[in-house]
Amino acid sequence: MNFNYTQKSIELQQKLTSFIDEHIVPIEQEHLDFQSDSKNLWKRFPKIEELKQKAKEAGLWNLFLPKEYGELSPGLTNLEYAPLAEIMGKKIWISEIFNCSAPDTGNMEVLAKYGNEAQKKEWLTPLLNGEIRSAFLMTEPQVASSDATNIETSIVLEGDEYVINGRKWWSSGGLDSLCKVAIVMGKTDVSKPRHLQQSMVLVPMNSKGLKILRPLTVFGFLDSPEGHAEIVLENVRVPKENIIFGEGKGFEIAQGRLGPGRIHHCMRLVGMAQYALELMCQRTLERETFGKKFYEYSSIRQEIAKAQCNIEQARLLTLSAADKMDKFGNKEAKDIIAMIKIVAPNMAQKVIDSAMQILGGKGVSQDTYLAHYFAIARMLRLADGPDEVHMYQLGKSCIQKYSNL
Amino acid sequence: MNFNYTQKSIELQQKLTSFIDEHIVPIEQEHLDFQSDSKNLWKRFPKIEELKQKAKEAGLWNLFLPKEYGELSPGLTNLEYAPLAEIMGKKIWISEIFNCSAPDTGNMEVLAKYGNEAQKKEWLTPLLNGEIRSAFLMTEPQVASSDATNIETSIVLEGDEYVINGRKWWSSGGLDSLCKVAIVMGKTDVSKPRHLQQSMVLVPMNSKGLKILRPLTVFGFLDSPEGHAEIVLENVRVPKENIIFGEGKGFEIAQGRLGPGRIHHCMRLVGMAQYALELMCQRTLERETFGKKFYEYSSIRQEIAKAQCNIEQARLLTLSAADKMDKFGNKEAKDIIAMIKIVAPNMAQKVIDSAMQILGGKGVSQDTYLAHYFAIARMLRLADGPDEVHMYQLGKSCIQKYSNL
Amino acid sequence: MNFNYTQKSIELQQKLTSFIDEHIVPIEQEHLDFQSDSKNLWKRFPKIEELKQKAKEAGLWNLFLPKEYGELSPGLTNLEYAPLAEIMGKKIWISEIFNCSAPDTGNMEVLAKYGNEAQKKEWLTPLLNGEIRSAFLMTEPQVASSDATNIETSIVLEGDEYVINGRKWWSSGGLDSLCKVAIVMGKTDVSKPRHLQQSMVLVPMNSKGLKILRPLTVFGFLDSPEGHAEIVLENVRVPKENIIFGEGKGFEIAQGRLGPGRIHHCMRLVGMAQYALELMCQRTLERETFGKKFYEYSSIRQEIAKAQCNIEQARLLTLSAADKMDKFGNKEAKDIIAMIKIVAPNMAQKVIDSAMQILGGKGVSQDTYLAHYFAIARMLRLADGPDEVHMYQLGKSCIQKYSNL
Amino acid sequence: MNFNYTQKSIELQQKLTSFIDEHIVPIEQEHLDFQSDSKNLWKRFPKIEELKQKAKEAGLWNLFLPKEYGELSPGLTNLEYAPLAEIMGKKIWISEIFNCSAPDTGNMEVLAKYGNEAQKKEWLTPLLNGEIRSAFLMTEPQVASSDATNIETSIVLEGDEYVINGRKWWSSGGLDSLCKVAIVMGKTDVSKPRHLQQSMVLVPMNSKGLKILRPLTVFGFLDSPEGHAEIVLENVRVPKENIIFGEGKGFEIAQGRLGPGRIHHCMRLVGMAQYALELMCQRTLERETFGKKFYEYSSIRQEIAKAQCNIEQARLLTLSAADKMDKFGNKEAKDIIAMIKIVAPNMAQKVIDSAMQILGGKGVSQDTYLAHYFAIARMLRLADGPDEVHMYQLGKSCIQKYSNL
Repeated sequence: MNFNYTQKSIELQQKLTSFIDEHIVPIEQEHLDFQSDSKNLWKRFPKIEELKQKAKEAGLWNLFLPKEYGELSPGLTNLEYAPLAEIMGKKIWISEIFNCSAPDTGNMEVLAKYGNEAQKKEWLTPLLNGEIRSAFLMTEPQVASSDATNIETSIVLEGDEYVINGRKWWSSGGLDSLCKVAIVMGKTDVSKPRHLQQSMVLVPMNSKGLKILRPLTVFGFLDSPEGHAEIVLENVRVPKENIIFGEGKGFEIAQGRLGPGRIHHCMRLVGMAQYALELMCQRTLERETFGKKFYEYSSIRQEIAKAQCNIEQARLLTLSAADKMDKFGNKEAKDIIAMIKIVAPNMAQKVIDSAMQILGGKGVSQDTYLAHYFAIARMLRLADGPDEVHMYQLGKSCIQKYSNL
Repeated sequence: MNFNYTQKSIELQQKLTSFIDEHIVPIEQEHLDFQSDSKNLWKRFPKIEELKQKAKEAGLWNLFLPKEYGELSPGLTNLEYAPLAEIMGKKIWISEIFNCSAPDTGNMEVLAKYGNEAQKKEWLTPLLNGEIRSAFLMTEPQVASSDATNIETSIVLEGDEYVINGRKWWSSGGLDSLCKVAIVMGKTDVSKPRHLQQSMVLVPMNSKGLKILRPLTVFGFLDSPEGHAEIVLENVRVPKENIIFGEGKGFEIAQGRLGPGRIHHCMRLVGMAQYALELMCQRTLERETFGKKFYEYSSIRQEIAKAQCNIEQARLLTLSAADKMDKFGNKEAKDIIAMIKIVAPNMAQKVIDSAMQILGGKGVSQDTYLAHYFAIARMLRLADGPDEVHMYQLGKSCIQKYSNL
Repeated sequence: MNFNYTQKSIELQQKLTSFIDEHIVPIEQEHLDFQSDSKNLWKRFPKIEELKQKAKEAGLWNLFLPKEYGELSPGLTNLEYAPLAEIMGKKIWISEIFNCSAPDTGNMEVLAKYGNEAQKKEWLTPLLNGEIRSAFLMTEPQVASSDATNIETSIVLEGDEYVINGRKWWSSGGLDSLCKVAIVMGKTDVSKPRHLQQSMVLVPMNSKGLKILRPLTVFGFLDSPEGHAEIVLENVRVPKENIIFGEGKGFEIAQGRLGPGRIHHCMRLVGMAQYALELMCQRTLERETFGKKFYEYSSIRQEIAKAQCNIEQARLLTLSAADKMDKFGNKEAKDIIAMIKIVAPNMAQKVIDSAMQILGGKGVSQDTYLAHYFAIARMLRLADGPDEVHMYQLGKSCIQKYSNL
Repeated sequence: MNFNYTQKSIELQQKLTSFIDEHIVPIEQEHLDFQSDSKNLWKRFPKIEELKQKAKEAGLWNLFLPKEYGELSPGLTNLEYAPLAEIMGKKIWISEIFNCSAPDTGNMEVLAKYGNEAQKKEWLTPLLNGEIRSAFLMTEPQVASSDATNIETSIVLEGDEYVINGRKWWSSGGLDSLCKVAIVMGKTDVSKPRHLQQSMVLVPMNSKGLKILRPLTVFGFLDSPEGHAEIVLENVRVPKENIIFGEGKGFEIAQGRLGPGRIHHCMRLVGMAQYALELMCQRTLERETFGKKFYEYSSIRQEIAKAQCNIEQARLLTLSAADKMDKFGNKEAKDIIAMIKIVAPNMAQKVIDSAMQILGGKGVSQDTYLAHYFAIARMLRLADGPDEVHMYQLGKSCIQKYSNL
């Protein structure tokens, strides 16, 4: 047992931090202003492409991608990637610069692991190169999608084509002008056992019958330029080769996809909370009321102390989960993955809320990333499974472990 | 002691509810769609004016206005008004229909209580008629405005005019096209004792030198069409007659303004929480996971039970505060007013958060009012004094009461 | 609606307070010392009987007893009794002085309402006179007794006698030397519908076959001299006349018993929390750390402010429940009774915990009543139904109310 | 970074667990019965001495003692000792069997590190051998002892003797019949700078003038046979050689003593919480209400899931603190030590409270260790510094770290 980062990890952290200090910090205010100006809705921040190029050149590219899949990545373990994801999480918009954004990361892993050569060539390569982006169409408005067996979208083989009908929402990234392909989860055969009915198919975003109904808001955020799309699929036809890994494999792929993806989210959430902590610490020096600086108030120190305790605990739990996944695989690590899914977004929501309180009006406005991070953290208590589902399963697993159930 | 509403109060509640059922419920979806369409930014919902007219005819007008000030109102006590504010709070956008919106209500009370005849004629009358709206310019970006003595805007008498310089933000309603006048808090004489330096002046929104810099967002919401403005005042000149109640009276007026205004906010927050409770109850019937309807889950019932307990307690506390204000005045009621300021927004934030969790993605999106209400509740933990300031003062008062401090 | 106590209520509160100031405050330290000396285990505090006599003479006797049952009481409504119960709750050991202790109060109500004349003469009269005390034998160690249908004790008619077999625990008061009779809940006929199987019988404590196995501790408290008994009933025989209200009426009686009893508990809990609040306020003046008096710390003021908010809300909720019970009966008031059952003990536990933290070592020791009150509050989150059962039922009821379930 | 225990650590854990399974589990009920029988007050459990002998023979002795001090110990690092402390924490009474009980462990470390040869020979050797026990007299009833500069006990040199006067309380272990010596903290010179006034002297428990006034209770528990003593020191005289490390070194020694001691406490708290978790898991299989087994209730699973998340996080945080202390020393680790001081007892209190709720009446009674563990956890939120003091300092340190304060 050893709680120090390895030399390799420390060096990568420093490299990433230097890149950010040199190339990103100087234009951060520019980005904040761009984002909060409604004239720029659905436009991509102009400097992103040039920064992507620089990151690629610096070897800070596809950092998330495990060794076994990637020549285009440094081939990090989850444990090595985790602190980098945390650093990117502090400035959430920059993940894309390093080609480490959701849902692309998960989609690339799916294609790398389950895709055939043709699929890889057509979609994985441009994704790995950062030339296109992608969407993941799973959640549906009409059913509780936290139980994946509820999904109703149908994928029916007719001749050489799959015909897809259904309605999806919360398809994050679906509104991005670079988004060219979606992985769609649906049911190919409802007569099969519950966990063998689902399949995933690749659907180009410009397919006939695929219609973006509207962007959804998270609190009031549209999350431009990616957005969260509500999409209708009406008799969308794709070649039968677009099935991923075969019919009935949808549930299995989904399970495999969620583990590492969640580690990424959780480390980013740790980074967002860390951002909030640093902001509130700085604020305590700037303001005073009733003749005292904020930092002199014991109640403010308590908020900060609690935040630090909670961040550090969530960080350790997530790193421990990463280590377990690396060593024993996602299945063996399922309980601790459930734990971080429960802990990280709740922790981040609480810490950011505290920071908002100390920053006052500034904290809820567009003048910091706090309000946006709050919305992300809140959303992540629901996205790929609400807290309650994870607690339901973790509780059961725990009872089994300590009893003879 | 008696916990039943009076007959008069019940009748008014029924009348208001009937009006809403008849005139507002049928167009609610239309309003939700209007609001969430970015094309309509800064536009007023077209049917508002006609609904205001209907409400006026029905005698549901200026409900907030106490007997002593108002011919144009039913002249209710705080205790009588409270359940009506709760009802309006369930559909927050409709307060304006009954001319009961902040910050107009507080501004009308200030003018009714402290304004001279000319001020009343010019500004109070059109406000009471719902012909114009108004803003309250107090909070400043550079200082912790929760301590009103920090305020830096200067109001300097030069000849027959006051010259105003300063920067204000969170001027709610300031972007509304109907907003014609602002009450501005600033300092007329920094050589006076701390609580006698402040004054309030009336400043027409079209004054030269008054510039709206930008709308602020609250968790991504612009709160169109009212908005929250950041405003700069550069050598703005108003006639010296525009001073309200005399120089050095700013702090006193502010104190008087906050009490009842907060009762209004708190009852609206109770209404918003009640809306969230009803929504989540209904949702439990619609959804199922893992073979069980939501309402069968004990954890979901717990959330609902806790929400109900917290709503009912906050409701009683706010009603009790209203009763105390009616009987003994704002000063005598200051401790219980501090209590509701602490309790109501925190309660509402928690209940709405629970509802979001049960509604899932729908709960954070534009498809219900939940996310917007969350933002309002969160903001109200800061607006006219953060939780911490109220706890600081209430704690001190409590210690004095039970000891010999 | 009116939040002021009536003149009658205020007078009674003053009378009770005067009695306490005159007769009880001077001997409080003596009682605290008596209680915490292990030599006095199971001994009754010697001055109790003389104080009972004084209270009876002062008309402060059987205050809990509703008008319809009592000549030996002032005949108060629940709403009138509530503030008196709160006052007694601040010094929990004194309830007995006014013949207002659990479980006697509930037992007297059962006998007054459901007992026949012979039962009343034999047991109710001496209870009303404070000559004897009583126990209520419901909870069983082997089953989850929060679901009363789980109870296993058998009550079998054999000739002219009922033969009782079973094991009970948490029979509060069972170890008191004055405890002469128990009301025992058991099943007379398991072939009946679930809620008609139970009956209640009167069992003298000196019955052959009734054996007190041991006193139970609550945290480390034995709660001498009353105690919480674990009792075995082995072929205990009582005349068939000892059945209360008839066979199969046990569940119905239990339901009727719980409502008002809980109001008593809840108001006492409000009193205990109020005691804790006052203690912590006083403490803030006595202590200092790092150069500051405790009352100057904003974090301490926050604890006090939150405590006050929570106490006042729970007080209002309990008073509102009392009012509802008086006006509409226990059945109609069941939801708000569930609410106070959930709210009051949790509130008291939290407030007392805060007070302990401010009092430090003294707060957990025998030098104040805090630790004992904490244990009582904690126990009351379980006694006659854990929080979870009330939330389960309240949640269901709420869902039914706001949906079409 | 690596989250697996080392082979050495795993072997020690297995060895300790085997010892417990073989020698302690079979007599656990006997111990529980012995403890809860008031006849045995202040008696030592008869089998302790024989178990100590067995543990010594098995090499499971003085496990806490670092390599540099101990021949009589396996010489473990904090990180290696931590999981053993957790295992002992699950059955708190057994720490003494392995000579790992507070306050002896801290006292032995003080003597090993700061004692001279004569002091070591007279007191450290028998302590290391488990022949005697010891007390640590620091806290005083009259002042807030969390600020050590408040301490008032005087230690005055008169000729060849120190004369000690003062009153101490919460001297844990002071009532144990084996307790032969106390380390007393007091002031030797109030004219020195604030942190150089304090000194520590060794005082035999049978010194003339040292009088145990009474045992203190913790939530009703006397914690026999060790107890928590209130002690008066009246002109107690000890040879001047009894000073530890020299006059004015008291504060420095205290600082050094607290770090590792707290790691021990925190790991024991993790163990206590783990015990509670396992107990509640088992309980969910035994009980049913309203036709469902406890483990089927989603609310119960949530409690268990949350408990597991919180335990695992506190465990990792404490292990990380141990690692930091081993590598960089107590001073460098002060922030993370403050974190575990805040986190561990609060976590344990919460988890044990949840377990009590699921176990019902049994959970608060003497039938499990839960209530006792609750009292310990609650007490540890106060002992050597309340939560608030640690948050005050941690908050300050955090602000300094992320700002230029």
